[in-house]
Amino acid sequence: MTIVTLLTDFGTRDEYVGVVKGVILTVAPQVTIVDLAHHIAPRDVPAAADMLAAAFPYFPRGSVHLAVVDPGVGSARRIVCAEAAGHRLLAPDNGLLTRVLAEHAVQRVHQVTNTRLFRVPVSPTFHGRDIFAPVAGHLARGGDMAELGPAVDPAGLRRLDLRIPRWAPDRRRIEGSVTAVDRFGNLITNITRRDLEMLAGGAGGSGALRIRIGPHR
Amino acid sequence: MTIVTLLTDFGTRDEYVGVVKGVILTVAPQVTIVDLAHHIAPRDVPAAADMLAAAFPYFPRGSVHLAVVDPGVGSARRIVCAEAAGHRLLAPDNGLLTRVLAEHAVQRVHQVTNTRLFRVPVSPTFHGRDIFAPVAGHLARGGDMAELGPAVDPAGLRRLDLRIPRWAPDRRRIEGSVTAVDRFGNLITNITRRDLEMLAGGAGGSGALRIRIGPHR
Amino acid sequence: MTIVTLLTDFGTRDEYVGVVKGVILTVAPQVTIVDLAHHIAPRDVPAAADMLAAAFPYFPRGSVHLAVVDPGVGSARRIVCAEAAGHRLLAPDNGLLTRVLAEHAVQRVHQVTNTRLFRVPVSPTFHGRDIFAPVAGHLARGGDMAELGPAVDPAGLRRLDLRIPRWAPDRRRIEGSVTAVDRFGNLITNITRRDLEMLAGGAGGSGALRIRIGPHR
Repeated sequence: MTIVTLLTDFGTRDEYVGVVKGVILTVAPQVTIVDLAHHIAPRDVPAAADMLAAAFPYFPRGSVHLAVVDPGVGSARRIVCAEAAGHRLLAPDNGLLTRVLAEHAVQRVHQVTNTRLFRVPVSPTFHGRDIFAPVAGHLARGGDMAELGPAVDPAGLRRLDLRIPRWAPDRRRIEGSVTAVDRFGNLITNITRRDLEMLAGGAGGSGALRIRIGPHR
Repeated sequence: MTIVTLLTDFGTRDEYVGVVKGVILTVAPQVTIVDLAHHIAPRDVPAAADMLAAAFPYFPRGSVHLAVVDPGVGSARRIVCAEAAGHRLLAPDNGLLTRVLAEHAVQRVHQVTNTRLFRVPVSPTFHGRDIFAPVAGHLARGGDMAELGPAVDPAGLRRLDLRIPRWAPDRRRIEGSVTAVDRFGNLITNITRRDLEMLAGGAGGSGALRIRIGPHR
Repeated sequence: MTIVTLLTDFGTRDEYVGVVKGVILTVAPQVTIVDLAHHIAPRDVPAAADMLAAAFPYFPRGSVHLAVVDPGVGSARRIVCAEAAGHRLLAPDNGLLTRVLAEHAVQRVHQVTNTRLFRVPVSPTFHGRDIFAPVAGHLARGGDMAELGPAVDPAGLRRLDLRIPRWAPDRRRIEGSVTAVDRFGNLITNITRRDLEMLAGGAGGSGALRIRIGPHR
């Protein structure tokens, strides 16, 4: 069974998430739907971009990830589907894929323009229900990405200005930022495990690290 | 796989929603369960009635919709199952089906009285677990509505006093109410798409609409 | 399809619950995952212990219940899997199983030590993802409990000091505590249905009960 994950800023007070699931299941009854998060602050594309990149690699290859934080809904912004690491990610072209694109090679990207896959009529304010959901269902039941619309150049996708950590010239020090604080009080930074491994395990590295956050060591 | 949707005022802090799902899955292991909403204000039947009618048509025909906002639990209020548009809706007869009944032709309604389908013993305060869940499981695994109990006249179901929009005598103007404000600040009114189409597309209609909300145009 | 239930203090703002589900589904794609609760106060093991015992018996026999409220994550605390009433319960050995152990005979308990079942590398702060999830997937797809690690004596499991109700010497009176207040204002006590049946139906019992809560009768 194919998995479809959902990442939205819809919250769970209204029926919107349930409606999106109903449309997906109407198109692809056998799919397993998993909630990634719905409590992203409305229109907070950077937070969604971080969360999508942090979560999707833990799902099986072949999964479809639907990410709808879409302040430009109803405007001319594009909707795109990117294939990366064996996953398909469906999102508005508003920067939501920024961190995925920074961390993974992208096999191909298609713009979503094939109106025959959409619900009719398409509401100008609820593309989650009328475009994203049926297109995710199409992919989840085995439909080809090429049917979504024309291939587009990944280089042309909109990217947010990521807060990227800065390496010292001798590459023995890296300076990053705290990007989130989780429910347990853990500080999430933009320094990756790979960065730390390079620091700790590099030539002449002792394996020990010193960490400074603000005035704390 | 049959779908069972859940609409309750149980919230998600307690284990109640999980327990209802456990009972459904015990009766009907193959079912797909989808949450519509659980954060309806406790005992807010009108809000639940709006949400149920707004959401259920987006699911596949054959789905079972369990709606438990039930301030009269343990009293003599009836539990009923209505079939409409190929869906089965299971709810207390407290007005929760009002908007569904107003918007759809109902094929048949049965009262839920067959105690052989219930869990034993039935708690006086948790019919969601002991009556609604196993009855939904019965329907979802292919059980007949007629086994639930006697057919009842849809005209006898309890209806809330819906805030219905008022048409001007010349039917060129309609006056409705804002019934909800969603997470994004969108105002939800009781004026339907069909109302607007009648306004915009009626004989002599220009297709353009003027909208007034309070002092705003 | 085997069911895996999730009981955590992860909340639903972060992507942690979704990631745990992704790992489970990677190991056991056919599983049905059900949320029991994720809004337990961070590190509130006693509340989780009550909720787990209250909820798990409503699921089908054969279900796997993953309970991760784990303030000792990364320390030397053990992770265990207990079989009770045909269910398997996977939890840190920090008292989370206290009420399950008090209310059910336990068939067997295994410590979870088999690193071949874990994700690599194991994060010191996210055993939910790297140990609990893949081990739950192993069990859900039919894996044997004995593969998890050595059998351990149930008597050696850590138990919380439960607030147990006190019987009067003549066993015609029982004094318990309110342990929780639910969303509807219902008071949840540690006095069980069985206690009340013993009170009401005991030799010479009239079936009527008098209840006192604080100054109220």
